[in-house]
Amino acid sequence: MSKESIAILGGTGDQGLGLALRFCAAGREVVIGSRKADRAVEAAEEVGKQVSGAQVSGVENGDATDGAGIVILSVPFEHTASTVKSIRDRLAPGQIVVSMGVPLATAVGGSAAHMVGVWQGSCAELVASLVPDGVHVISAFQNVSAHRLSTLDEPVECDVVVSGEKEPRARVMELCELVPGLRGVNGGPITNARIVESMTALLIGMNIRYKVPEGVGIRFTGMAES
Amino acid sequence: MSKESIAILGGTGDQGLGLALRFCAAGREVVIGSRKADRAVEAAEEVGKQVSGAQVSGVENGDATDGAGIVILSVPFEHTASTVKSIRDRLAPGQIVVSMGVPLATAVGGSAAHMVGVWQGSCAELVASLVPDGVHVISAFQNVSAHRLSTLDEPVECDVVVSGEKEPRARVMELCELVPGLRGVNGGPITNARIVESMTALLIGMNIRYKVPEGVGIRFTGMAES
Repeated sequence: MSKESIAILGGTGDQGLGLALRFCAAGREVVIGSRKADRAVEAAEEVGKQVSGAQVSGVENGDATDGAGIVILSVPFEHTASTVKSIRDRLAPGQIVVSMGVPLATAVGGSAAHMVGVWQGSCAELVASLVPDGVHVISAFQNVSAHRLSTLDEPVECDVVVSGEKEPRARVMELCELVPGLRGVNGGPITNARIVESMTALLIGMNIRYKVPEGVGIRFTGMAES
Repeated sequence: MSKESIAILGGTGDQGLGLALRFCAAGREVVIGSRKADRAVEAAEEVGKQVSGAQVSGVENGDATDGAGIVILSVPFEHTASTVKSIRDRLAPGQIVVSMGVPLATAVGGSAAHMVGVWQGSCAELVASLVPDGVHVISAFQNVSAHRLSTLDEPVECDVVVSGEKEPRARVMELCELVPGLRGVNGGPITNARIVESMTALLIGMNIRYKVPEGVGIRFTGMAES
């Protein structure tokens, strides 16, 4: 179970590529997906250059979804629904889909420090409304800086709030522990994605106010060390 | 300016009393307000017992508001509007009102891990809609554990996101630094209270899931030390 393959759809973007680098560096098999296979192949080659011995390939999103234990959706919020619809027929019961999108107002030409409302409550709940029965949607990774993920020789130093059903949530929390410095925190039910996603807008504002291009991170204190 | 007196309305509750203890321990003058003067007097006596030499008094909310540099609203969310209306005539331009309320669903008989919607967007913006012109409303202190505030011999170890207009925001950030372990973080415009308030519901859920009755805290990482 813990060695299941990881597909990262939109893995050609900064944050998806950063996760691909980190999971490959931890020895896990990663399939990068993109709408266009050739861009996914390029991204996989980039990962192979940076991580020696990386088990990584690049294919079209639907092909990446087939048979992956965990499918991470790393596409801009405005492409979330169309991406999920495009892979819907490739998803099978038992698979986990990880929503890391954030409904930033950039989706409608606004500021990255503002949010837009989502009818379902959050990007993660939008995704959950679109997947077939038996597919588990988990909210995670929204607040992890792409820059820090990509700086392979440094720990990421950030907590990841993981929300959704208990058993798949635990599996995604395990995934966090593969990345040095990252810690998965039990974020309860998926409806809490409403809060966690909005925290991204707050952090983006802090990045600007405190001039931290590498990205401000978040840590929860007072919990027993896991 | 930095020695202005602090009024804490609803200072008889756990969180208000905790702040009163900490500000008195830092040598600041605190006026505890309550709807009933005698309850405020009792709370002030309690602070006097725990902090030797405390400059603290207890009076009715309106009397506490008169002349205070900073007025902290520490009342349950459902009493926010009525409290602000009751002191409205006592507020003067230049005063700072700090909103620390959170629209938890407990206000309508629901769970403390859920939120209710506020027409203005947040408790802080509700307060801002009710104060006279020239009074500055700042959002702060929502995520600080009452238990940790009250444990005077230990630092609080929590960041406080402070949102609102620049100059009064800086003054409230200074207030945070009076409490060992507490750090004020620039949270930008008051509209960000929508995010910060909801983080309280997330933290309350974590307190339950991780069995931390003292309260999970939050730290932002990656910013230069202030």
